[in-house]
Amino acid sequence: MAMVRLIEIEDASAEVRAVYDDIMRTRGTDWVNNFWKALANDPKALRRVWSAVKEVMAPGALDPLTKELIYVAVSVTNNCDYCIHSHTAAARKAGMSEAMFAELMAVVALANETNRFANGYRIEVDEAFRPRY
Amino acid sequence: MAMVRLIEIEDASAEVRAVYDDIMRTRGTDWVNNFWKALANDPKALRRVWSAVKEVMAPGALDPLTKELIYVAVSVTNNCDYCIHSHTAAARKAGMSEAMFAELMAVVALANETNRFANGYRIEVDEAFRPRY
Amino acid sequence: MAMVRLIEIEDASAEVRAVYDDIMRTRGTDWVNNFWKALANDPKALRRVWSAVKEVMAPGALDPLTKELIYVAVSVTNNCDYCIHSHTAAARKAGMSEAMFAELMAVVALANETNRFANGYRIEVDEAFRPRY
Amino acid sequence: MAMVRLIEIEDASAEVRAVYDDIMRTRGTDWVNNFWKALANDPKALRRVWSAVKEVMAPGALDPLTKELIYVAVSVTNNCDYCIHSHTAAARKAGMSEAMFAELMAVVALANETNRFANGYRIEVDEAFRPRY
Amino acid sequence: MAMVRLIEIEDASAEVRAVYDDIMRTRGTDWVNNFWKALANDPKALRRVWSAVKEVMAPGALDPLTKELIYVAVSVTNNCDYCIHSHTAAARKAGMSEAMFAELMAVVALANETNRFANGYRIEVDEAFRPRY
Amino acid sequence: MAMVRLIEIEDASAEVRAVYDDIMRTRGTDWVNNFWKALANDPKALRRVWSAVKEVMAPGALDPLTKELIYVAVSVTNNCDYCIHSHTAAARKAGMSEAMFAELMAVVALANETNRFANGYRIEVDEAFRPRY
Repeated sequence: MAMVRLIEIEDASAEVRAVYDDIMRTRGTDWVNNFWKALANDPKALRRVWSAVKEVMAPGALDPLTKELIYVAVSVTNNCDYCIHSHTAAARKAGMSEAMFAELMAVVALANETNRFANGYRIEVDEAFRPRY
Repeated sequence: MAMVRLIEIEDASAEVRAVYDDIMRTRGTDWVNNFWKALANDPKALRRVWSAVKEVMAPGALDPLTKELIYVAVSVTNNCDYCIHSHTAAARKAGMSEAMFAELMAVVALANETNRFANGYRIEVDEAFRPRY
Repeated sequence: MAMVRLIEIEDASAEVRAVYDDIMRTRGTDWVNNFWKALANDPKALRRVWSAVKEVMAPGALDPLTKELIYVAVSVTNNCDYCIHSHTAAARKAGMSEAMFAELMAVVALANETNRFANGYRIEVDEAFRPRY
Repeated sequence: MAMVRLIEIEDASAEVRAVYDDIMRTRGTDWVNNFWKALANDPKALRRVWSAVKEVMAPGALDPLTKELIYVAVSVTNNCDYCIHSHTAAARKAGMSEAMFAELMAVVALANETNRFANGYRIEVDEAFRPRY
Repeated sequence: MAMVRLIEIEDASAEVRAVYDDIMRTRGTDWVNNFWKALANDPKALRRVWSAVKEVMAPGALDPLTKELIYVAVSVTNNCDYCIHSHTAAARKAGMSEAMFAELMAVVALANETNRFANGYRIEVDEAFRPRY
Repeated sequence: MAMVRLIEIEDASAEVRAVYDDIMRTRGTDWVNNFWKALANDPKALRRVWSAVKEVMAPGALDPLTKELIYVAVSVTNNCDYCIHSHTAAARKAGMSEAMFAELMAVVALANETNRFANGYRIEVDEAFRPRY
C-alpha cells in the first residue's frame, strides 16, 4: 500500500487529467501506471517529472531501447522494485529479447563487482583514461 | 596511491603475464591498465575476473557499445571514479559520441530521481508490469 | 517475518524492560515498535541504539520535525522500507503536512538526480564552495 | 578534471547564456558554479535541470534552509563530493549554523545505521505505521 | 514472482544439469536454491557465476564462516532480501551463533554510520593509514 | 580539506581531551586519528560514537580481526575513502595478511555482483532459507 492515495483517472483534477492524457497519447495506451497516480498528489511534480521523462526518453543520439536498458541498469543497482518492473516492461515493449535481458543482468552484476575491486583497492586512474579536450 | 602495489608487466610472474598477454591481444593494445595490475596481486582473481569480463563484454545479443553504456550507468550510480573513467574511455572507443554521453548521463540521473519517488512513496507494481511466462 | 524473534513486552527481561519503559515514557505511548523488539535480542545494542536515538533526535539546534524529515530523506535514498514507514509516521506526528511530505520527496528525488550528474561528469568543486576556517 | 569541458560565461551560446543569466538573477550572484558549466554541454539538460532546481528549491511548505539540509543529507548518504560542498555552502548561506551542521551529520549517520538494523533483521512494519487514507 | 521462469532440476538441459549436480555435490545437498534456477536461463552466466562462487567461497586464508559473515555484511548494506536470507542461512550452517549474528549486525550498522560521518565531513586520510610498500 | 576544523590534542577542551585520552589508552597509541578530531567539534557526538565503537568492536562472539574485516567490507561497498584506509590499517594491525585482504576484496566484489542478479531477477527467497524460531 503506497504512502499516498493513488489518484485515479476519474478522480483527477483538470490539471492532473491533462498530464494523464498526454501520457496516454504519447504512449498510445488507455491507462496510466501507478507511478503517475502517486505523483499526482503533487500536480507540479507530476507535470515536471513527466515532462522530464518525455524529453529524456525520446529518441535522440541513443534509441529508446538503449535508454530503457540503461534505466533498468540503474534501477537494479539501486534495487528499486517498482522501477525494475516498469522499465523491464518498457524495455520488452521496445524490443528487448530474453537474451538481451540476460546480458543486461550480466553486465550490471559484473559492473557492480568490478566497481568494488576498484574502490576497495583505491586504484589510480590511468593517464590514458583521463578526458582530453 | 592504491592499497596494493601495482604489478608491472616486467615484474609479472608467468601466470600473471599470460593474462596480461591475453588482455593486450584481445584489445589490440600494448599496455595493461591499472585495474589488472592491482588484481594481479591475487593471480586467481586476475584470471577469474578477466575471463568474466571477456565473456560478458563480448558482442552477443547486445553490442559492445551498449554494454559499455550500461557499465558506465552502473559506475556513475555507484560513484566509482576509476570505473567511470575506464568505461567512459571504452565507450568512446566503441563509438560513443558526446551527444550519446550527454544522453547517457541524463537517463542515469533521471532514473536515480524516479527510483526515489517510487521507493519513497512505496508505489505498488501495476499488474500490467508483472512478468508473464 | 523478521530474521530474529521479536521480544514482546511481557517476555522482556528486566534489562530490556527498562529500555522499553524509557521508550514509552519518552514518547508518551503504551507500546513499543518492532524495531526495538528485534534489537532486544541483543540487550546491549538495544540500550546503545536507543540512547543514541534519544540523544540525537532530541530538540537542539534543529527541531524534531526537521530531524525526522532528514531521517526520511536518508531512508528513502537507501530504500529502507521499515524506516520510511516509521519515520514518515514520526514526521507526521511532529507536524509534517501532506504538502511538506510532497516537497520532501521532490527534494530527495532531485538530489539523487543531481548527485549523479556531478558524479558522472566528475565536476570539480568550485573554490567558493571550499570550507573556510 | 571534469569529463567534459566547462562552458565559461563568455563562451556560452545565447541559449546557455539565458539560463546562466537566470541562475545569477535568481541567486543574486555574478558567477555560475561548475555544475551548470558542465551541464551546459547539453543545453536541454541545462534548461531542464535548472528549471527543476528552481521550482523544487523555492520556498513552499518547507523553507529553503530545510530543503538544503535535506539535500545535504542525501548527498552525504550517496557520498557526492561536489554536492556536499555546494549544498553545505548553500545551507550556510540560508542560515545553517555550525551546531545545526553537526546535528545534521549526526542524524544522517544515525539514520544510515538504523536503516541497516531494520534491513538486516528484515523487521516487519508495525500496523500503526501503515499509511491511513 | 521472479522476472524469469525458474528452471527446475527436471526441466534442466544437460549443460544446466551438470552445474546443478556440481552445486549439490559441492554442498552435499539434494536441492538447488532459486538463485541458480533463475540464472539457469543463461547457462553461460550460471556456469560462470557458480564457478566464481565455488572458487571465492572455498576455504583459503579466510575460513568459510568469515566469508559468509562478509557476504551478509555486503548484502545488508545493499538491502538485498534474497542474499540476506540465503547467506544468513549459509553462515548459520557454517557455525554462526545468534550472538555472532547480533555482533555482525552491530558492526555493519556502526560502519554504515561512521562511513557517513567520514564522508559528510570529508575527513582527510591520516598519513599513518596510507599503505606502505 | 575537511568541512570542519580538526581539533588537535593541544586545543582540546577538558571534555574532548578525556575522550582522546580514552582512545589513546584503549589503543595503546600516543596519537588520535582525524576522524575523532573532526567529530570533536560536537563533543556529545564524539563521546557517543567513540563509546559505541569501543563497545561494538571489543572482542565478543566475534574476534577483533573478523570485526575489522566486516567493517572494511561495508566501507568498500559504500566507497568510503577514509574508512577503507583506517579500517584496512586496523585489520592489518589485528593480523590481516595480504592473502586475507585479497580474499576479503574478492568476497565483497562477488557479493556485490550476486546481490544485483538477485535484485534484478527479483528472485523469491527459498522456504529453506526462511528463519525458523
